[in-house]
Amino acid sequence: MTQFIGIEDLKRLVRTTGTKGFLKQLTDYIRADFGRWPEFEKSARVASHSAKGVIELMPTSDGTLYSFKYVNGHPGNPASGKLTVTGFGVLADVATGYPLLISEMTLLTALRTAATSAFAASLLARPESRTLALIGTGAQSEFQALAFQAIIGIEEIRVYDPDPLAVEKFMANAAGFGLRLIRAGSAREAVAGADIVTVATAVKGRAAVITADMLSPGTHINAIGGDCPGKTELHRDILERARVFVEFTPQTRVEGEIQQMEADYPVTELWEVLAGSRFGRTDADEITVFDSVGFAIEDFSALRLVHDLTRSGPKHMLDLVPDVADPKNLYGELVSEPHRVLPARTPEIA
Amino acid sequence: MTQFIGIEDLKRLVRTTGTKGFLKQLTDYIRADFGRWPEFEKSARVASHSAKGVIELMPTSDGTLYSFKYVNGHPGNPASGKLTVTGFGVLADVATGYPLLISEMTLLTALRTAATSAFAASLLARPESRTLALIGTGAQSEFQALAFQAIIGIEEIRVYDPDPLAVEKFMANAAGFGLRLIRAGSAREAVAGADIVTVATAVKGRAAVITADMLSPGTHINAIGGDCPGKTELHRDILERARVFVEFTPQTRVEGEIQQMEADYPVTELWEVLAGSRFGRTDADEITVFDSVGFAIEDFSALRLVHDLTRSGPKHMLDLVPDVADPKNLYGELVSEPHRVLPARTPEIA
Repeated sequence: MTQFIGIEDLKRLVRTTGTKGFLKQLTDYIRADFGRWPEFEKSARVASHSAKGVIELMPTSDGTLYSFKYVNGHPGNPASGKLTVTGFGVLADVATGYPLLISEMTLLTALRTAATSAFAASLLARPESRTLALIGTGAQSEFQALAFQAIIGIEEIRVYDPDPLAVEKFMANAAGFGLRLIRAGSAREAVAGADIVTVATAVKGRAAVITADMLSPGTHINAIGGDCPGKTELHRDILERARVFVEFTPQTRVEGEIQQMEADYPVTELWEVLAGSRFGRTDADEITVFDSVGFAIEDFSALRLVHDLTRSGPKHMLDLVPDVADPKNLYGELVSEPHRVLPARTPEIA
Repeated sequence: MTQFIGIEDLKRLVRTTGTKGFLKQLTDYIRADFGRWPEFEKSARVASHSAKGVIELMPTSDGTLYSFKYVNGHPGNPASGKLTVTGFGVLADVATGYPLLISEMTLLTALRTAATSAFAASLLARPESRTLALIGTGAQSEFQALAFQAIIGIEEIRVYDPDPLAVEKFMANAAGFGLRLIRAGSAREAVAGADIVTVATAVKGRAAVITADMLSPGTHINAIGGDCPGKTELHRDILERARVFVEFTPQTRVEGEIQQMEADYPVTELWEVLAGSRFGRTDADEITVFDSVGFAIEDFSALRLVHDLTRSGPKHMLDLVPDVADPKNLYGELVSEPHRVLPARTPEIA
């Protein structure tokens, strides 16, 4: 039997730890997995493009556990009340190849993206950072706010989004977070004097949501939204001036902000900073950029956490793989009388 | 909500049509999809190898539907009562990227492999073929027997397996199939005079389960078991003499029987025969080989059939993707009260 974690299961799980508690644990798992980076099998995602969007598979393995995420990106979905990005993932046992867990990953991807941002900032931002500019108050924004508050100690957030309804939504959701929230009239106003800048917009094409002249010395930029070929958010002048940090270089060169730069533009991978083999921030005035595109190991960490958190207690189980008496007698399984009743699902309303 | 088809669901579905009826429909779906081969996105599978086995993802798309299969291959699994090969698959809507269906594919892969064998034989075997030699009576054997009976009109099967228990199992399962079953004392005895030979053994390494001198003129060989690098079943002398047909050439050159041959060894893809652009069998004395390794489009066909067969009637549904009021308010979904009760699962015992 294979464990299933649906939307309601994940909501319940996050409620038991609190969102900040979950983000802290997830950041610890991501840090632990980035700390053993060379153990992982790494490859660029496998993409299937269409006129409407993209469907991707993102596999990885540490030799003991295997994971993959299915994720789509369809910019036109919101027009029909659907999410631009949804996903689900699977954790499997490398020794047998049997799947252990299927989990929703729409919510989990939002959580892991924010946790990865905070993890990167813990390596790269000035330790005394307390102010975050949040450009773009879409689906990722509240997760960013909570992760930076829980892991970095951010106290003040200045938000800007050209869509006033999106800002309203953010202000309403974040009202109880215990943060000082400031509504800025422009990206420039939000960014001015901020210690950390998160850019997570849905702009299409080559945009320049922020430019180098907006930034104070020592700013750390967390660039989330430039995450596919043809989509960037940072003006090239920032990349010319900053030191850039990435997850997995071959993927980021294609999908990240650095697709604007030459193929030999120098970058540092986050795990190298964690391992101490490459420098992170070298002085208080440096501009650092985390050019985030999302990598399979972060999904692996998220699935591993969910698996660990649900080891005890009631689970939803699926009869995804047959439990056979004789492995050579698969036909006997096909024509056998129904010999198993699925364990009752736990009540949806706990 | 995403439809779920578990082992018991698939058993029930196959019971309603009968296994032969299901294999016939599946062969029709495979033929239809091979008939529009150029419309599909095709790539070699994405494999993750370990000391114990392999885990693969096999995606494809026709521009309207996307599918992938997760499949493992772990030769040591039977020693611990597990299946060597298990799998599950997903069918998704290309326009939105949303998954439509998650299905078990352990049973479904066995069915589609047999249906593909019969489809290939319908193009390549002599039309008057009535006798099948079945070398290897493992998990695939009964499916082969039923597919060749239902689609090709096979009336007699001569079986051989070095494992007498596996032969007993086959004879017991196939007793009611309405076939003349003959237990052969050797592969040579089984093959002598057979119209079609299916080789589906679990031998490891470079084996030569059958050799050219065993074969009568006009034999069609259905080679199932050589399906990964380093594993072959046919002696090279057969390939030197026969005309070889494959699913997707780049994959078969690595995984199939023809890995024994030079990189420019001539092969014909099945879809080309179906399209009439390349010859299939050209005379009654020719030896033809279907070098089967399994391709993503066959899984696509199987998932498409299952989806079509279950359009009406009760379904198992999973809350795999959130149903949001405001696509920008994913956080609101995370912290919302449980607002959905999963539809009751249909009873496992109908």
